[in-house]
Amino acid sequence: MDAASSITIRRARRDDVAVIVAMLADDSLGSARERLEDPLPPSYLRAFDVLETDSSIQLMVAEDSDGAVVGCLQLCILPGLSSQGASRGLIEDVRVATHCRSRGIGEQIVQWAIAEAQARGCKLIELLTHNSRVDAQRFYARLGFQPSHVGMTLRF
Amino acid sequence: MDAASSITIRRARRDDVAVIVAMLADDSLGSARERLEDPLPPSYLRAFDVLETDSSIQLMVAEDSDGAVVGCLQLCILPGLSSQGASRGLIEDVRVATHCRSRGIGEQIVQWAIAEAQARGCKLIELLTHNSRVDAQRFYARLGFQPSHVGMTLRF
Repeated sequence: MDAASSITIRRARRDDVAVIVAMLADDSLGSARERLEDPLPPSYLRAFDVLETDSSIQLMVAEDSDGAVVGCLQLCILPGLSSQGASRGLIEDVRVATHCRSRGIGEQIVQWAIAEAQARGCKLIELLTHNSRVDAQRFYARLGFQPSHVGMTLRF
Repeated sequence: MDAASSITIRRARRDDVAVIVAMLADDSLGSARERLEDPLPPSYLRAFDVLETDSSIQLMVAEDSDGAVVGCLQLCILPGLSSQGASRGLIEDVRVATHCRSRGIGEQIVQWAIAEAQARGCKLIELLTHNSRVDAQRFYARLGFQPSHVGMTLRF
């Protein structure tokens, strides 16, 4: 079975927000940060409406052949002066639904982001992955990413 | 002498681009990436014009009491769904002119970015610093940043 080939990558819609939040909440780091409630806290929908108006941001989902959302990724294309004025791509919030792992969905969605960033003139893509996410680091290394930087964070 | 107190932090202007590029080029990593030529390659000015129109990005400079630009920082405020729909701040391209180091300029400009990100509703600020920049990592740790993530990059 080639499950991976049946995935469609498309822009997230407002009615995808709950399933995206469920994926963000579905691990030890995310469960402490998110509030997966019904109805969903309005802050999530407000954030969706803001990012929809931001032309530098694309929140994407992977949809399986039954129309279920099984993965997500946010790509930001950021202009800047460094590297001779090249834009940078920033990948954030990559998730694949637990029951759909190891089917190449994460790879397809990250490869989409790499191709999109290249098409939009980026010379660099960057991302931060938590020190504890060793599997994710191996996954990104397999796609060509180097662990070249320390990702530093300040939470309020 | 309290040199640090005489710094003004303001938005970068188009006529600051050359001095910003000179700071970006002034280390072993930057010198390999930038083209510090007179006239400046037009890609830098094009990038400045793009980032000027992007309301999520603020390219800032530190100006000393003589009106000389002695530091820079780019802050991006990025909406997203994670952390209950909180925006994130991304700090990039922090530099202080070599002859002005150890005067607290870097600290003032990063503290400006922290305050600005908080004022704009961010719950998190993130940045990537190259593995080799051990002094920078110590500097950010002193300002409260944690080395919580691996910063992964893919260059084309």
